[in-house]
Amino acid sequence: MIRLYVENPLLENQDVVLTENQSHYLQKVMRLKENDDVLLFNGRDGEWKARITGTSKKSTILFPITQSRPQRREGDLWLLFSPLKPKRQEFLVEKATELGVSCLCLVHFERTSVPKVNFEKMQAHAREATEQCGRLTLPEIKPLMSLNALLKNWPAERFLLFGDESLSSPSLEALNLNPQKPYAFLVGPEGGFSPQELSLLKSFPQAQGVTLNPHILRAETAALVGVSYLQMKTQTVSSLVRNA
Amino acid sequence: MIRLYVENPLLENQDVVLTENQSHYLQKVMRLKENDDVLLFNGRDGEWKARITGTSKKSTILFPITQSRPQRREGDLWLLFSPLKPKRQEFLVEKATELGVSCLCLVHFERTSVPKVNFEKMQAHAREATEQCGRLTLPEIKPLMSLNALLKNWPAERFLLFGDESLSSPSLEALNLNPQKPYAFLVGPEGGFSPQELSLLKSFPQAQGVTLNPHILRAETAALVGVSYLQMKTQTVSSLVRNA
Repeated sequence: MIRLYVENPLLENQDVVLTENQSHYLQKVMRLKENDDVLLFNGRDGEWKARITGTSKKSTILFPITQSRPQRREGDLWLLFSPLKPKRQEFLVEKATELGVSCLCLVHFERTSVPKVNFEKMQAHAREATEQCGRLTLPEIKPLMSLNALLKNWPAERFLLFGDESLSSPSLEALNLNPQKPYAFLVGPEGGFSPQELSLLKSFPQAQGVTLNPHILRAETAALVGVSYLQMKTQTVSSLVRNA
Repeated sequence: MIRLYVENPLLENQDVVLTENQSHYLQKVMRLKENDDVLLFNGRDGEWKARITGTSKKSTILFPITQSRPQRREGDLWLLFSPLKPKRQEFLVEKATELGVSCLCLVHFERTSVPKVNFEKMQAHAREATEQCGRLTLPEIKPLMSLNALLKNWPAERFLLFGDESLSSPSLEALNLNPQKPYAFLVGPEGGFSPQELSLLKSFPQAQGVTLNPHILRAETAALVGVSYLQMKTQTVSSLVRNA
């Protein structure tokens, strides 16, 4: 069944009127009609089965029938990365969303070579992936910031693992991860960290470098290796029950 | 430094004459000239630093100067997947190559919906990723086969893990993997395994289903989660030394 993220509240007996874009998608792309059902979620009120009760050229009205899944806390895992070329970034946003990243944060490094970021596209890709993979919340997308600014405001309790290409850091699986603590994973730009950035990271109390693979990984590959491992290791088995 | 895969033998004092395509790439795309150096490898003779000693319109001659890395055995990990839409497949081939997959094998499932595979493009993507990531060998690419044919000729000593979306299988990290044994990872098509395929897999002695993530992963995401975890768990620390 089609899943749609909406901004509207989702409550029994309260109609949901879709935006023009989503209306177009349901009626023209997916060819749904009156009395067809879809799943709606808004990140707050769980997931609802809703029926199309009215259509017009620019609008669709849906009636929430029953809550199919209650809202629940989802994983807490941050991914921090340098802006990438559009296709690679789109791919990473999609994959990180599927894997359960709760916050995507772009970091500007000395060797960042992609000059600008299309945040609207990033948000659209994250929303589509959220709709597709069954999550109940969108990942948060933070504005671009410098490494210095990021570390200056770093939350005391969150661990920061970063991909270290020098092969001098322990492998991910050699770390003793604490599933009770929140983690973040940071990957540098294609050209690597500058020596200053590396020494800043190495001296940062909550940070730890990790070796990911014997080969030279592209930034988005490194990000996915780190994120998929951390998701597996720090999210409790109870979160593996999709419909709990 | 640019790395190029060649088919020629690589020996001291034996010129390497590039194909027209590679010649074009070096001269026109990368703008290299006589006396510039590149790295060459062929999957058999290690990696060589070589100097451009002659150029013509359609050809480039390189002279191997010194072996920069000896040939060595690389990881042994198979990835089996259903043909995907071109962009997703390109991405998966690139990432699996970077992560160290030794053999890419396409499997035709009942619900496979992509009708044909461009093996030449697959090979080109695998070669480019191999050149970029520092591997010394290309991944082998096997022709498309049915699940039945695959299992019929399955090597007795190789474990076969498959992504099971039902959430009834153990998680990857709950498995007791044996780093001395070869592994393969199998993901089904976007529509999932058919009930017959699932029961065939569940009754196959070397096969074991695994739960990868609480969300519904796309096929290529599932493949990358499995492959990156198996690479980490089954390849010994010695292989982490890039230049050993």
